[in-house]
Amino acid sequence: MKVIKFGGSSLASASQLEKVLNIVKADPERRFVVVSAPGKRHENDTKVTDALISYYQKYRNHQDVTAEQDWIIQRYQDIIDSLGLGSAIFNQIKQSFKDLASLPIVDNDFLYDTFLAAGEDNNAKLIAEYFCQNGLMARYIHPKAAGIIVSSEPQNARLLPASYDKLEELRHAREILVIPGFFGVTEDNQICTFSRGGSDITGSIVAAGIGADLYENFTDVDGIFVAHPGVVNNPLSISELTYKEMRELAYAGFSVLHDEALIPAYRGKIPIVIKNTNNPDHPGTKIVLEHQEQTLPVVGIAGDDKFVSINMSKYLMNREVGFGRKVLQILEDLNIRWEHMPTGIDDLSIVLREKELTPIKEQEILAYLTQTLKVDEVDIERNLSVIMVVGENMRNQIGVTAKVTKALSEKNINLEMISQGSSEVSIIFIIKTEQEKEAIRALYHNFFENN
Amino acid sequence: MKVIKFGGSSLASASQLEKVLNIVKADPERRFVVVSAPGKRHENDTKVTDALISYYQKYRNHQDVTAEQDWIIQRYQDIIDSLGLGSAIFNQIKQSFKDLASLPIVDNDFLYDTFLAAGEDNNAKLIAEYFCQNGLMARYIHPKAAGIIVSSEPQNARLLPASYDKLEELRHAREILVIPGFFGVTEDNQICTFSRGGSDITGSIVAAGIGADLYENFTDVDGIFVAHPGVVNNPLSISELTYKEMRELAYAGFSVLHDEALIPAYRGKIPIVIKNTNNPDHPGTKIVLEHQEQTLPVVGIAGDDKFVSINMSKYLMNREVGFGRKVLQILEDLNIRWEHMPTGIDDLSIVLREKELTPIKEQEILAYLTQTLKVDEVDIERNLSVIMVVGENMRNQIGVTAKVTKALSEKNINLEMISQGSSEVSIIFIIKTEQEKEAIRALYHNFFENN
Repeated sequence: MKVIKFGGSSLASASQLEKVLNIVKADPERRFVVVSAPGKRHENDTKVTDALISYYQKYRNHQDVTAEQDWIIQRYQDIIDSLGLGSAIFNQIKQSFKDLASLPIVDNDFLYDTFLAAGEDNNAKLIAEYFCQNGLMARYIHPKAAGIIVSSEPQNARLLPASYDKLEELRHAREILVIPGFFGVTEDNQICTFSRGGSDITGSIVAAGIGADLYENFTDVDGIFVAHPGVVNNPLSISELTYKEMRELAYAGFSVLHDEALIPAYRGKIPIVIKNTNNPDHPGTKIVLEHQEQTLPVVGIAGDDKFVSINMSKYLMNREVGFGRKVLQILEDLNIRWEHMPTGIDDLSIVLREKELTPIKEQEILAYLTQTLKVDEVDIERNLSVIMVVGENMRNQIGVTAKVTKALSEKNINLEMISQGSSEVSIIFIIKTEQEKEAIRALYHNFFENN
Repeated sequence: MKVIKFGGSSLASASQLEKVLNIVKADPERRFVVVSAPGKRHENDTKVTDALISYYQKYRNHQDVTAEQDWIIQRYQDIIDSLGLGSAIFNQIKQSFKDLASLPIVDNDFLYDTFLAAGEDNNAKLIAEYFCQNGLMARYIHPKAAGIIVSSEPQNARLLPASYDKLEELRHAREILVIPGFFGVTEDNQICTFSRGGSDITGSIVAAGIGADLYENFTDVDGIFVAHPGVVNNPLSISELTYKEMRELAYAGFSVLHDEALIPAYRGKIPIVIKNTNNPDHPGTKIVLEHQEQTLPVVGIAGDDKFVSINMSKYLMNREVGFGRKVLQILEDLNIRWEHMPTGIDDLSIVLREKELTPIKEQEILAYLTQTLKVDEVDIERNLSVIMVVGENMRNQIGVTAKVTKALSEKNINLEMISQGSSEVSIIFIIKTEQEKEAIRALYHNFFENN
């Protein structure tokens, strides 16, 4: 049993929906289809969701909304007409969008969420109708009926854990269920949307809820690339990635799936595959709990900038019980999240994201370090980037660190800091941001082009 | 103005004292001579200090002490006779050792310290006399007269900071002052000894007190070796070492000078040189605040065993503000000193010395991590060694890490963890203990034999 989710660009036009139909038909295990709202058909197009935001803003400001309504309804009509779906479904969708303009504006915390969710909701109805007319036994199901009951946090809904019992019952549905992504329903019957990456979250929740064998996430790329295509020309895509590896890559800027979307599937031990609607024969990237394939030691190389390092040294620091804890305590008191803490004997660095260190917090920290902890020296190093070389199989391979450091040294890239933990899922190098792209290219060349 | 300190083996016999005289004569800046008690003349010999311990034990147990007194007095007599110093100084020393056996035993916290200090004290008298008879204007000075006033902590004296004012006055002495090492005098006029490495501490205190240009520490080796001579055959000695580098090497088992002895000289910004009494023309190893010479990037390679690592992972750990601080807090609550904390994204390791992790503390930590911090996985890795590649000039050299990791990888030595802080005084590698010696040899070969 598989849950299959399609992103907006996969659902932007009739020709895209034909691909979707063929994909769903191709595997009888694809029994739960989670859909986004129609996305862009071409680069300068408008997403339905963005049009709904304009519609909401005008309505909220008591302005005329006819143009926005018409544009949105026309998007759906274009698809319906091209697919020959008839007027019943069109009228239903048209009315649904018009009805938004009669919702109460005052004291309605969920107005924005309700407007936005209409894009996914109506698309699910349309797609269920299209499937039915083309030989698939399919049924639209509203998140409330599906059991996606969420907390009352507008634009930041969280699934209530009790939902999973209801979701599990969906296993017994005889039809293919078409579920709108991006939103759930509160216990008070309000539409409430998830945070960014919302349809991915719905797919992940449904996959965990029904205990799917696989969660297929269809998008418009051939999976996750080994390195950022903006840095490396035409990079390879990763065939298999573990959740841990995905987390490490996501940390340093890889963003195919949002963290929030990974959690339910991870907890439910459901593998994910990221595939391309426009190239469904490409195997894509599989995200698994443990590697099944014999992969290369390194699966991906990521880089992220805007890091700073607070470097301190104190003679005999190493003998002072509690020194490191006190440093972390002041950061916690200032609500600063830190990333790494490389240590020498009498020196210690704290690596954090630049945005965490506001000027006032920086002053507080420096005062505390010099006056209370009495460090001998402290300085702040800026414009740092983190380079992550990721791969769970590194731990069985002697020499990955040697290969990495040699590649960087040949390009005259100095290592400011290194952190390699015992998990060996990744090795983290901190370098100057001005050398970040060159470092990624050098590593890509050494790990993926020389073999 | 130089302070010169001689260790026990440099003062063990008349022939050794002749070398000492020549060394002091060779440089008119050598105006403060700190001396130990006579050490071993050959491998199976007994140090005067150890003989004094036997003397003390017998006296304390009300046993006959004649044999111990005679043996000790004979040691001094042999030296006095060989140097032709005459009977006045001999009688004075003889009486001094005999008088120990009339000290009160009951309610005397400083009895042990007073016995032991007599070795240094009488040797200083002897050496001052020898210098005088050989053309040097020299004078014995007791620590009380010199102003070495210490806390009342038997066998663990600490200099009272006010002492430095008195010590500074010694600058104006016209004679060469011969000062017994190893002990000071409390404000209640009790003899109180320093901890291990005691004469080194006295030398360091005097050097700081008088603001010496150099503290010369004479011993029986040609300085500090680049790697342990028990691991590497006939290693090079280090010509110049910074205090920071010395600290890093000392941390991983290098032990020419005790930490405590370094502190006063470090604070007083006094350079130290470690030289060989038996080979005074060898330049030895200079310990400086900042490198003056153009040194190699790496100055030394050290290894130390008996480390363990507590490795933990938790999905999304990285998002949890305060996680690392809580881990360090439980260690601090259990009074555990930790060494390094390499981090990945969702994993963290704590490296500590094996002796810190008693079975009961280990249980407490594991229970806290699993029950309170709810980590997904935790394990303890044992039999680890720390390898330190030390050198302040590494920071200007791209490629040291690459060279190190390549050398280890060629010997199939896997890196369990790496920590390279921003100071770049050292790079710390954690490997399995069974590969420690091989690793040190490989690094020595690559950094010191290939050039």
